[in-house]
Amino acid sequence: MEYEEPKFFHVMQYAAAADGDVIDMVSGNPDWEPPAALREALREYADLPSEAFQYPPSEGLLELREAIAERRSVDPDRVVVTNGTGEANYLAMARAFERDAGAEALLTDPVYPYYPGKVDMLGGDPTLVPTERDGSLDVGAIREAASEDTALVVLNTPNNPTGAVYDLDAVREVVAVAEAVDALVVVDEVYDHFDLTGEFESALTLDSDRVIVTSGFSKSMAITGFRVGYGVFPEDHVDSAKTRHMLVNVAGARPSQYAVHHALAETPPEYYAEARDLLADRADAFTDALDAAGAEYTRPEGAFYVLARFDDFPGTMANVKRLVDEAGVAGMPGEAFGTARDEWIRFALVTPRTEAAAERLADYFGD
Amino acid sequence: MEYEEPKFFHVMQYAAAADGDVIDMVSGNPDWEPPAALREALREYADLPSEAFQYPPSEGLLELREAIAERRSVDPDRVVVTNGTGEANYLAMARAFERDAGAEALLTDPVYPYYPGKVDMLGGDPTLVPTERDGSLDVGAIREAASEDTALVVLNTPNNPTGAVYDLDAVREVVAVAEAVDALVVVDEVYDHFDLTGEFESALTLDSDRVIVTSGFSKSMAITGFRVGYGVFPEDHVDSAKTRHMLVNVAGARPSQYAVHHALAETPPEYYAEARDLLADRADAFTDALDAAGAEYTRPEGAFYVLARFDDFPGTMANVKRLVDEAGVAGMPGEAFGTARDEWIRFALVTPRTEAAAERLADYFGD
Repeated sequence: MEYEEPKFFHVMQYAAAADGDVIDMVSGNPDWEPPAALREALREYADLPSEAFQYPPSEGLLELREAIAERRSVDPDRVVVTNGTGEANYLAMARAFERDAGAEALLTDPVYPYYPGKVDMLGGDPTLVPTERDGSLDVGAIREAASEDTALVVLNTPNNPTGAVYDLDAVREVVAVAEAVDALVVVDEVYDHFDLTGEFESALTLDSDRVIVTSGFSKSMAITGFRVGYGVFPEDHVDSAKTRHMLVNVAGARPSQYAVHHALAETPPEYYAEARDLLADRADAFTDALDAAGAEYTRPEGAFYVLARFDDFPGTMANVKRLVDEAGVAGMPGEAFGTARDEWIRFALVTPRTEAAAERLADYFGD
Repeated sequence: MEYEEPKFFHVMQYAAAADGDVIDMVSGNPDWEPPAALREALREYADLPSEAFQYPPSEGLLELREAIAERRSVDPDRVVVTNGTGEANYLAMARAFERDAGAEALLTDPVYPYYPGKVDMLGGDPTLVPTERDGSLDVGAIREAASEDTALVVLNTPNNPTGAVYDLDAVREVVAVAEAVDALVVVDEVYDHFDLTGEFESALTLDSDRVIVTSGFSKSMAITGFRVGYGVFPEDHVDSAKTRHMLVNVAGARPSQYAVHHALAETPPEYYAEARDLLADRADAFTDALDAAGAEYTRPEGAFYVLARFDDFPGTMANVKRLVDEAGVAGMPGEAFGTARDEWIRFALVTPRTEAAAERLADYFGD
């Protein structure tokens, strides 16, 4: 296995062991409350008869699949509930490779490090294709990279780590490229509730038999530990995905699925809007401070992250540690996200101390 | 993917749609209460701060891994908490194949159908090796079947579907065979709390660097839907297993792990003994009725199942359906478990109506 474990843990351990006070902007764990209905559903579940503690259907509780299908405007038969978005991505990528349609996966660079890790594990060859400097899709570069050996293209929008929200027309063009070389396109939309532009459109609206959309409730309900995600598969691929899911995991965790189903039904839109507004405010405060620090950055259009570049301070692990020790702020080195952002550092906005962290960075770099 | 979906669902659907009253002896879902401490822990969990709802460590909550390690007398670093025993078996089998030590898996016949399914999915070649007629290990047959191409041997004790509890000396001999051909041995001990002989010994006592032991809490705590299992890997293999687990599932479900950890710490031995005694009583009642029905069977030494053979009534899907319609009892066709028990039908003892089912079978076959 050629996969290198994500550097997240290394940075978090270093920050935790540091002498001074350090603000953690490393992990993508939401720091706000989950929906009240989720807690209430867990309490209810604890008192259900013991039959409710046994295997859910392998592809997920029917009522949860139906609720997802309704929200996504797809047939419930196309929905597989998974152990988080991570498993959904694994199933989708595995499906792309098992078709004997090539071994190459095109991944956008900067890249979420689990993607090349999964590709390697599945015996595929990851090829990194740089995005534009603002994080938007470079369709021409993807077209140029695609070949008969391409089995898979992976997109993530809103994007981790760039914060870009992809234009649907650009996604449509990527799907056309994929079709021409018999590749599948996996679009990871786990941050779809955190679109700050108001213009995000799901790739499901393309209604393409080439597109697998993955998502989950880890971020939208602030429950990364519950492990409830899903994939929406084209009809031709859903049975294979269900079989692999069954053979790997048998089924997902029923207490988690039960709680998410109730939270999905009973949580008002205001809950999601509040979290989004909170993130938008933090993005404002943080990027203001980056201006004061003289940093280059892209204002995030969505997701939880800001990539920033400071002059003469490349995004190496060594510099990230220096920032922990000397500024009291922990970020993620850009070199962890492929090759395109070696100069950059990623900061996650999921801490109530975002503003304090911004001030520390402005003080540290602003002289 | 060559895997044929288990026939469980087909039989269960047929039984549910039948006109008359049918006693379900198909599934392996315990029908008794989970530990009281498990329900209490779930209630507690629902009120924890939101940090407790975020990712657990990928390899499982530390306190749970330590509790498992203590019970199993192994180093906690060797324990990976998984999404049920199913994922633990998947990780273990994948590890056996990724070593470039061959493509063949030796599976005992009759076989739990997920095992050949996983082997196929992983690109391996399953070879079925018959056990003795009483279900015990035929070490000579395994020795004869083993070759340089053998990468993996899978054992399950107490066994589903035969009910056999393997003699530790026989397991030791199988491990020696595996060592000679550079294979790993996966021993699935998920039914270890349901040893009716009092003589079961874990393969971990062999202290072999060839042996991966898998297990979980689905059966022992009557919570098949919680998805908490684990693998105990030899030092040389644990890092690869952790990496694959992370790349497939990121982590397991934290509410489930939290509840299991508390139940493990607070549940008295009497809880497990009561469930075991219940099963022993049911095995007595059921096999008495099989005597009255003139059936051949093996009295289960452990696990939840009885395999029975009725004269002129082979264990085909058609005959299983006939039994549903004409006797009001649903079992599993022996042909679902490999090739060695085509003549047999498996009955699961996890229904409070075991005795009634036994009487129905005695009436139906006893004339």
